[in-house]
Amino acid sequence: MELLRRKILEEGKGIGNDIVKVDMFLNHRIDTELLYAMGEAWAEAFRADRPDLVLTVEASGIAMAVAAAHAMGNLPVVFAKKSKTAVQGQETVQAPVYSFTHKTQNMIRIERRYLPEGSRVLIIDDFLADGQAVRGMMSLCEQQKATVIGVGIAVEKGFQPGGKALREQGIHLKSLAVVDRIEDGQIILRPDDD
Amino acid sequence: MELLRRKILEEGKGIGNDIVKVDMFLNHRIDTELLYAMGEAWAEAFRADRPDLVLTVEASGIAMAVAAAHAMGNLPVVFAKKSKTAVQGQETVQAPVYSFTHKTQNMIRIERRYLPEGSRVLIIDDFLADGQAVRGMMSLCEQQKATVIGVGIAVEKGFQPGGKALREQGIHLKSLAVVDRIEDGQIILRPDDD
Repeated sequence: MELLRRKILEEGKGIGNDIVKVDMFLNHRIDTELLYAMGEAWAEAFRADRPDLVLTVEASGIAMAVAAAHAMGNLPVVFAKKSKTAVQGQETVQAPVYSFTHKTQNMIRIERRYLPEGSRVLIIDDFLADGQAVRGMMSLCEQQKATVIGVGIAVEKGFQPGGKALREQGIHLKSLAVVDRIEDGQIILRPDDD
Repeated sequence: MELLRRKILEEGKGIGNDIVKVDMFLNHRIDTELLYAMGEAWAEAFRADRPDLVLTVEASGIAMAVAAAHAMGNLPVVFAKKSKTAVQGQETVQAPVYSFTHKTQNMIRIERRYLPEGSRVLIIDDFLADGQAVRGMMSLCEQQKATVIGVGIAVEKGFQPGGKALREQGIHLKSLAVVDRIEDGQIILRPDDD
């Protein structure tokens, strides 16, 4: 997506080999005009798959999920909550999410009734690296017998394995920008696929 | 605001004397149509005060902040991050937020450059009870020499002191619904002020 790509190149910062810092417009300060253009881009990519619910995980996925949901006619949004601990409960469903960055495992959790059986779910998140958060959300859907119709990502780290694995599995994945690599603090993007 | 009031009365649940459970449409599952109507209501209340930035705190404030910012011509949104610990840093500004519910004190924090001196800030949050989160955000603004032009809240607990104190201080506060009390699991709302 051209607008996001331009923002990343102009304002984003690469740190070390693998950190893509975009918090000046995406996940601390939010460029709201960009955000709603991103929502439209996801809507265009996924409208034909007729999602009826947008699923994300707190915190920074929420803004993107509501922008996407708004662009598709105000679909409901459900955001999974993060928790340090596993809690058994009949009313909730949970899945583990391992963070390679922090070397810790957290749980994500939703109330079952907010993800009804048979839902057609569009998963939205800000970053895709190893794919652990997306896998966790897919597990919530599977446990609830909901169908994942696609995964919309703002920034995919193409040098990490999450995106490739999802595509090979046949998941409809739309990353609005894919970082190929970081060189001397410069973010190098892959050519756009559309 | 009529639409939110109706939702609270029809779907919300009162628990004990002071818990207002609205996570079925506001802060776990989000009714996106309601969300954007709320954004319009805040825009109507605050447009004349010419905010140039919307400030909230993660996680559930984010959806409301982007809806309000969108309704006011895509203002930038900044969300403060929560942290268990105080960290000194030249680049960040922080404020303590005491939670009466959890009997704990957390810090909220933003990068200074995202809240520039002289900003005209609209604070948005989902709940107002004791007012600690709003006070924390007001402190961030004061430390940055930014002006708080108003505070937009979804659900104010009118039986707790936060809203009254802000009004007495002359802060322009717009709560879209005010809970007067909870009786036998029933949420009783105050009459709308507009």
